[in-house]
Amino acid sequence: MVKQNLDCIFNPSSIVIAGVSTKGKLLQLGGNIILQALLSCGFKGEIYPLNPKGGEVSGLKVYTSIKDVPGTVDYAICCISAPQVPQFIQDCIAKGVKAVHVYTGGFSESGTDEGKQLEENIFSLSHRSGIRILGPNCLGVYNPKAGLSFSPGLPSEGGTTSIICQSGGISFFLTREIINRGAMFNKLISYGNACDINESDLLEYLATDVDTKVIGIYIEGVKEGGRFSRLLKETANAKPIIVLKAGLSEAGARAAASHTGVLAGSGKIWDVLLHQAGAIKVDSLEELVDTIITFQFLPSSIGRKVGVIGGGGGSSVLTTDYCTNAGLVMPRLSRKIQDKLRSYFVNGVAGATFNNPVDLSERGWNIYYDCIKAMLDYRGIDLLIYQFPMGMHPALFPYPEMEFMSNLIADNIIKAYRKSSKPMAVVIHSSVTVEDYQAALNCKQRCSEAGLPVYHSVINAAKAIARFTNYHERRGTIADKAGFPC
Amino acid sequence: MVKQNLDCIFNPSSIVIAGVSTKGKLLQLGGNIILQALLSCGFKGEIYPLNPKGGEVSGLKVYTSIKDVPGTVDYAICCISAPQVPQFIQDCIAKGVKAVHVYTGGFSESGTDEGKQLEENIFSLSHRSGIRILGPNCLGVYNPKAGLSFSPGLPSEGGTTSIICQSGGISFFLTREIINRGAMFNKLISYGNACDINESDLLEYLATDVDTKVIGIYIEGVKEGGRFSRLLKETANAKPIIVLKAGLSEAGARAAASHTGVLAGSGKIWDVLLHQAGAIKVDSLEELVDTIITFQFLPSSIGRKVGVIGGGGGSSVLTTDYCTNAGLVMPRLSRKIQDKLRSYFVNGVAGATFNNPVDLSERGWNIYYDCIKAMLDYRGIDLLIYQFPMGMHPALFPYPEMEFMSNLIADNIIKAYRKSSKPMAVVIHSSVTVEDYQAALNCKQRCSEAGLPVYHSVINAAKAIARFTNYHERRGTIADKAGFPC
Repeated sequence: MVKQNLDCIFNPSSIVIAGVSTKGKLLQLGGNIILQALLSCGFKGEIYPLNPKGGEVSGLKVYTSIKDVPGTVDYAICCISAPQVPQFIQDCIAKGVKAVHVYTGGFSESGTDEGKQLEENIFSLSHRSGIRILGPNCLGVYNPKAGLSFSPGLPSEGGTTSIICQSGGISFFLTREIINRGAMFNKLISYGNACDINESDLLEYLATDVDTKVIGIYIEGVKEGGRFSRLLKETANAKPIIVLKAGLSEAGARAAASHTGVLAGSGKIWDVLLHQAGAIKVDSLEELVDTIITFQFLPSSIGRKVGVIGGGGGSSVLTTDYCTNAGLVMPRLSRKIQDKLRSYFVNGVAGATFNNPVDLSERGWNIYYDCIKAMLDYRGIDLLIYQFPMGMHPALFPYPEMEFMSNLIADNIIKAYRKSSKPMAVVIHSSVTVEDYQAALNCKQRCSEAGLPVYHSVINAAKAIARFTNYHERRGTIADKAGFPC
Repeated sequence: MVKQNLDCIFNPSSIVIAGVSTKGKLLQLGGNIILQALLSCGFKGEIYPLNPKGGEVSGLKVYTSIKDVPGTVDYAICCISAPQVPQFIQDCIAKGVKAVHVYTGGFSESGTDEGKQLEENIFSLSHRSGIRILGPNCLGVYNPKAGLSFSPGLPSEGGTTSIICQSGGISFFLTREIINRGAMFNKLISYGNACDINESDLLEYLATDVDTKVIGIYIEGVKEGGRFSRLLKETANAKPIIVLKAGLSEAGARAAASHTGVLAGSGKIWDVLLHQAGAIKVDSLEELVDTIITFQFLPSSIGRKVGVIGGGGGSSVLTTDYCTNAGLVMPRLSRKIQDKLRSYFVNGVAGATFNNPVDLSERGWNIYYDCIKAMLDYRGIDLLIYQFPMGMHPALFPYPEMEFMSNLIADNIIKAYRKSSKPMAVVIHSSVTVEDYQAALNCKQRCSEAGLPVYHSVINAAKAIARFTNYHERRGTIADKAGFPC
């Protein structure tokens, strides 16, 4: 059978949800979470909840069977127990459904013969009929532009980041962290055991998806190694692909088998594969988020010369080590810019330093704008990093002052950034109390909304920015050799 | 002159503070912060604030000169401007003061000829008279047992962690982070430019200080390389010394020179020096804190076999990679313990896995105690890591439930831990909202108070625990060879 194009999972016009309850703790059940998610994300098509007992939920009629649903149905989300899934898919085929997202777990990842057989059965149904299956054992699709979502908390506003993610829990993490940092999603696909639709299908779709600018991948094991490798290579020069491969250790591969029933492959093979393809390898979830944020917010290409401005003598020394170790360059500042910065300190310069990093010390609040603007205008650097340890001096800045200060910092950063064409990154680090965290969050969110990449530590920022410059340098070199504009 | 023993800076019986203001924004001035810090930390001896105008502050008489202070004075804290410092030290010598802590900056770290000359002058005064000088350009001593402190927020309760820290800002960071994680300080010395008392003097003192169990060092540049190296070697086998060397990059060394006026030395020399001495090298501030916490809370020696229990399939796969990459071992669990864990899941096991890591899934709240206790009792592991991503499922667990859950998790962890002799570590990670952070902080603080090492991420925990096992393995081997008990 000819397989359906994946448009059927990204842009359905009507959705059946099997396994919706009309009583009990509704939000602890998959079908009801999905229903609420679709409603809150503003899905415009028809939604048909199913339950053998019928009834009503959230103002929608509950059908007892898919057979009774009027008209055509594009897409079904299946949240019923694993042994019932094959029959439901048969009913979907009979109804002319194009794709089924199997939310339910308890298939090959369970490690049981029964689970493996069930997965074999649904794969075979898909193979024979051409119906597409997403999953089993996954959250499905978040595509805010089409009103698709798996969690009621996710925004209906869309963006240009797309992620292929094998794990449901990691999908929750990535949506929360990335949205909190100001980048919006185009599509996220939690694809679980990949019995039919696999990472290669999804990557092939995103490669030509004009709305997707940056691709992130969390993968435990690959189903079609050769195809995936070829697709990575074809796509990586056109858009950045950032990959976190989990299950690389022997014990990790065992854990991956228990999680999504896949074979994980060795670390060395993956290192070579990703490097040759020009994809960007990251080593932790935090690095995945930081790198995606960097690619979303920084312009298409920048050099490696960074200037750092902010507070704290020890922080400045460590910041220099962290940036240099990551592969960035911290040039000395010219005498002219140092004198310019010094000239703003009309009340004395004790505690401040004017080398790179520039330490404004605690005296500098009233001259923050001038100093940041001067550094942004300085031609000797390609990027300015602002770093500040929020909550370091509780005695000097108790909470009301912290809140005031976090607004003051955000005001000055944003004002200077808007008057400049120099790229800038913001690092607010080291909160301890809830009040610090609140002040830091406030400052970070304001900077994110203003279009700045925001990081939780200088190490993280330096690593992500270095990956960004490495990618563009390599891409520029390749494009140069091939005679393409870079 | 014979130099005073460093007892004079750790256990003074009376203190003069030069540079205390009786009006204005008091807590923005060094002398007043120090005064409030001493009062809040419960310093038992006499405190004599100085100001040429006299007056009264916090119920204490302000003297116009150290000459007018009645009786003997052990220790002076000098917060007046740099050019006035040499005369003040001469007055101190005349008064018979044993040590002066020069809080003031603006000496060699300023890079100016004037600053360098001033530092030379005070060094020369110390050298000629035998008076000890701490600093200049530093916060001084936090020694809660003696009521000494540099920040009004620091607790008066003491502990067994001591830190030698060249930077004031980093000293603030370390006290806050480490205390927040439940380890109390014996002594912290912020020593700045080290014109007289240097890192070797301080290490020599802490080496024989029976109250100090774990030594942390943040150092930018060393004054007496050979002596420091010998002291590290002599001390490292008796107590763990955890070292963060900043300013290792060329640009970092330049920043260090601006910060504390020191020469930093190359990275390779430091790697070899620390390794040969048996000291524990860390690469970031966060690693310094995590490693100190590990040495404070774990027993004197454990093996590398870790079991992991907690929530999230993807988290479990990544946790396994992180632990294995750090050098820990994640053994398979026996059939018997897997069956035991499974037996607690009376309502079905969907989403849970019973390999190592054990994923309890969201169903497991009511059986948390049983599962954690069973893992602690299992002989196949040396340490149990509990890991949980707080705030991953906002739709499932909105705030009131998050708070309830964070208490439930802490209750079960602490109850199981108290009934076992197996070491355990706790990782609560990935907060986004202020409410998540509050719930996570609550859970972490309860675990810290119960004597558990708590970490913010699994990578951090794995690295710190691996450093701990490496240290004890090496020490055991050395002790075995030398015929000592290990």
